[in-house]
Amino acid sequence: MPIYIPPTEDMQYLLHDVLQVSASGIPGYEEIDRDVTAAILDEAGKLAAEVLAPLNAVGDAEGCRFENGVVRTPTGFREAYQKMRAGGWMGVDADPAHGGQGMPYLIYSATGEMFVSANMAFNMYQGLTHGAIAALDAHGSEAQKALYLPKLIDGAWSGTMNLTEPQCGTDLGLIRTRAEPQGDGSYAVTGTKIWISSGEHDLTENIVHLVLARAPGGPAGTKGLSLFLVPKFLPDAEGRPGARNAVSCAGLESKMGIHGNATCVMSYDGATGFLVGEERGGMRAMFTMMNEARLGVGMQGLAQASVAYQNARAWARERLQGRALSGPANPDGPADPILVHPDVRRNLMHQKSFVEGARAFVFWGSELIDRAHRTKDADAEALISLLTPVIKGFLTDRGFETTVLAQQTLGGTGYTRAAGLEQFVRDARITMIYEGTNGIQALDLVGRKLGQDGGKAMMAFFETVKAVLRDGEGDAELKSDFLDPLKAALKDLNDAVMYFMAEGMKAPANALAGSHDFLHLFGHVCLGLMWARMARASRAALEAGDGNPDFHVAKLATGRYYMSRHLPATGLHLARIRSGAESVMGLAPERF
Amino acid sequence: MPIYIPPTEDMQYLLHDVLQVSASGIPGYEEIDRDVTAAILDEAGKLAAEVLAPLNAVGDAEGCRFENGVVRTPTGFREAYQKMRAGGWMGVDADPAHGGQGMPYLIYSATGEMFVSANMAFNMYQGLTHGAIAALDAHGSEAQKALYLPKLIDGAWSGTMNLTEPQCGTDLGLIRTRAEPQGDGSYAVTGTKIWISSGEHDLTENIVHLVLARAPGGPAGTKGLSLFLVPKFLPDAEGRPGARNAVSCAGLESKMGIHGNATCVMSYDGATGFLVGEERGGMRAMFTMMNEARLGVGMQGLAQASVAYQNARAWARERLQGRALSGPANPDGPADPILVHPDVRRNLMHQKSFVEGARAFVFWGSELIDRAHRTKDADAEALISLLTPVIKGFLTDRGFETTVLAQQTLGGTGYTRAAGLEQFVRDARITMIYEGTNGIQALDLVGRKLGQDGGKAMMAFFETVKAVLRDGEGDAELKSDFLDPLKAALKDLNDAVMYFMAEGMKAPANALAGSHDFLHLFGHVCLGLMWARMARASRAALEAGDGNPDFHVAKLATGRYYMSRHLPATGLHLARIRSGAESVMGLAPERF
Repeated sequence: MPIYIPPTEDMQYLLHDVLQVSASGIPGYEEIDRDVTAAILDEAGKLAAEVLAPLNAVGDAEGCRFENGVVRTPTGFREAYQKMRAGGWMGVDADPAHGGQGMPYLIYSATGEMFVSANMAFNMYQGLTHGAIAALDAHGSEAQKALYLPKLIDGAWSGTMNLTEPQCGTDLGLIRTRAEPQGDGSYAVTGTKIWISSGEHDLTENIVHLVLARAPGGPAGTKGLSLFLVPKFLPDAEGRPGARNAVSCAGLESKMGIHGNATCVMSYDGATGFLVGEERGGMRAMFTMMNEARLGVGMQGLAQASVAYQNARAWARERLQGRALSGPANPDGPADPILVHPDVRRNLMHQKSFVEGARAFVFWGSELIDRAHRTKDADAEALISLLTPVIKGFLTDRGFETTVLAQQTLGGTGYTRAAGLEQFVRDARITMIYEGTNGIQALDLVGRKLGQDGGKAMMAFFETVKAVLRDGEGDAELKSDFLDPLKAALKDLNDAVMYFMAEGMKAPANALAGSHDFLHLFGHVCLGLMWARMARASRAALEAGDGNPDFHVAKLATGRYYMSRHLPATGLHLARIRSGAESVMGLAPERF
Repeated sequence: MPIYIPPTEDMQYLLHDVLQVSASGIPGYEEIDRDVTAAILDEAGKLAAEVLAPLNAVGDAEGCRFENGVVRTPTGFREAYQKMRAGGWMGVDADPAHGGQGMPYLIYSATGEMFVSANMAFNMYQGLTHGAIAALDAHGSEAQKALYLPKLIDGAWSGTMNLTEPQCGTDLGLIRTRAEPQGDGSYAVTGTKIWISSGEHDLTENIVHLVLARAPGGPAGTKGLSLFLVPKFLPDAEGRPGARNAVSCAGLESKMGIHGNATCVMSYDGATGFLVGEERGGMRAMFTMMNEARLGVGMQGLAQASVAYQNARAWARERLQGRALSGPANPDGPADPILVHPDVRRNLMHQKSFVEGARAFVFWGSELIDRAHRTKDADAEALISLLTPVIKGFLTDRGFETTVLAQQTLGGTGYTRAAGLEQFVRDARITMIYEGTNGIQALDLVGRKLGQDGGKAMMAFFETVKAVLRDGEGDAELKSDFLDPLKAALKDLNDAVMYFMAEGMKAPANALAGSHDFLHLFGHVCLGLMWARMARASRAALEAGDGNPDFHVAKLATGRYYMSRHLPATGLHLARIRSGAESVMGLAPERF
């Protein structure tokens, strides 16, 4: 069975040495000092390692069962769900007025990483609820908030998001689900939704579906869409689940992974729904949640890579094959641990330097979300909006790749089900697809976010990096090992932007044919930035004699790997971008 | 259900326009003219598409069943096996003296690609037999050949290779299985072997195991290993399966994919075995087969990518989402096929240009094997020996990546079991691991092959590329689009070799820390070379008015994508190689 060790030391480092949360000036951050976060992370880590992780393989092997419209989750999920509920983890960042703990989103994100590493399929039940809470909090009426939020925040009820239909995933303008006004303020919702995560299950007494549908009289396309709240059981006057609504699960999808999560086909047969926000404001309400949801998926990519790396490392320490070049490292054994071999170590360094850089990126993104929400900082909002597709696309593409590399470390054993690595690979694979495929993330980045407000957010990002370059330039070792490579990568990013400005004007395909590579170029610069910030923090800590010097020396060594072996990929991405649309669009469609 | 369309047009093009097999001067090649290969490829394609492909999902869903020592293959496999046997496909390149058809290995390889695309798990039953035939043909006694080869070539009996044990995969020097002489010329073989593909099944009346084991008195390590033939049923005087031997299947591995193939734990309990070749000549006998076996696995990487690409293409033509930038391409429909979108097309071009380049590389490698065997050309032998780890490692790493990209084209549908793409991904994943993990391939390439005979084979490769560069330089378009990029990539490869010579001398870790990147750099140069050769052939055909001009124009367009978007990766690999071992080996082992 795979292991899982909560990376709380690394998280504490990020919160306090790198982000220095207590000094950030974000309301609420002053409360999360070193001791407070240590206690929170330890508790979450225990739940993850002791309760959720042992159920991961169980959920994969059993899957969810569908019988007569009822969905049963795998053995142990109900008990684990109650433990997660008892810990208050679902509402850790929710409004205290409705029973939440009012902590920063950053804390939700950090604890969430551990839950996802331990059991991604399980954590999706609460993850979707979290999205529903955010949507209702932002767009629900006061009455809706009063009725639904306490139940969702408490975990007594769960939530879902219903967008996709058989004929449309990306292109939501093709949605056919209809909502007819009933005259009493409610609507009758009719249609079929597919790919509904946690759409039906046995963990909660009620399920609150948020459904994109079309009310009469609206325009075609996405502008005619509204958001409706459709409870599985209609709450009675006291807010208890009452009459069964006309919404049901028509079947489960048979998938490559995340078997423990029920991915449902949902049938709405004139189900009673309530408008959330304004008619034809459905897309706006959806977009409100998008930053958080997509950041959450990027975090899943990191989380799977993190646990996969831990298992690869454990194997590399235990498995004895061959001898070190420099002479036996384990002379009394039949062979040396494979960790001695350069290519095994290269593979592990590739994984480790990605995981730690990615974690810093997710933490930074979460901090930006808190800053945007808690200080109404429009610049932070614009920056996280720009970075969101990068976090989602880059961390899931590279997270999946990292998980595959970790599986490779185990050789044939990695291909067996018992080792668990192959499940991490299958589970991680969905993160590149849902919440908008990574192709859509790249399109969002290049087609929408990059040029927004005259490219203001992109300029702000460049300034952010330049400030880090400036601040550290007096430190010669920091400069040579971290800042100079970052500067070179930033130049590649700048050149790519210039190319899009010049050539994208002539033909949009020139920009869009480079969107995938731009997202990855941008992602590498972000992780390079994170490593530069971590290197600076660790060098400062070493100089001040703070903390465990071995930790900081290791951090610097890991960062050097990223800068010298990951970051040069920016040059390849730039070369591809500059090759333009010709080779991409040149082949006649019928000759594919 | 996924589709499969035999790529016979592309294969014919490679055989006759690019390799020009009839004019190659290799004995036997003069017989495989355009009509002969058309007939062979059509027949094999029919078997693949009509018989094997429909069983691929069946094999995955059912897997093999193990009951009381007996292994039952999935529904339909027995009937399909008889059809494959009746077609004579297993012995297509085997010695006619023992019932084979005496065709080139190139033909076995081309037909095999189609069988693997259609049903990789199924084809492994005959693939392992093919390996056993090669081993016996090269090292068996005349009596062994006379007794076993006709049965194996006919497919009445099947073969296996037994190397791995629980404590050793890569490090075969740790093998514990023992073989005690019985005084009658036979040995009693005792030990446990794991990961034995096709180790036990119900397709044939007998199974011939080739087993690496240790006879008494030999040295420790690999030098003490001998190869033994251990039949499941001991043949009687007439060559009929007689007494049951003391070898049995102790269980099946539960794996990520290739469920239709029985991956067995094999117990040898004093089983009667017969020495193949000389005592302590086991490793040499194994290495004889290695080039072919590893080329075959590289081909599997290509084959899975090929069928995955076909399904991605079909989806991209059918799925309607969004509109083309240039205005509706399907104005009467609700949306345009997603093939119109630049990023979808980029993804498909990435797949297609890899698949066609990889196929050319496998064909070229197969031709080199034929040249080495049929003309005793030592230079060809040295070159294919050098290229073998590249074919295996590059085509399986990139083949898997391509299969994942194809799955991505289908979005959420790609994650469903019904679409079949996720099975291709799970099946393709093993190719990076078995027959020597890709890390071992890289080690073999850099640590052994590169410097062999003073680097003679590597120099010959450089000369091969330079000849192609020289021959085509009078064609300005060929030069700018194909030869110049190839020349730049070749310079990167040369620089990498120079780096290894200079820095690897100082510390071997400097070379080995770059072995993975060197293999990929080399692989890209090989595919660049293949595209340059194809471009030259297609430009010649267009000029001469030979064949379908649309085919050749498409070939050139596809090649341009490879040269401008795949090939620049050589620069990244070189940068990583040149960063040396410092960042790879710098982290203290206990801080991983």
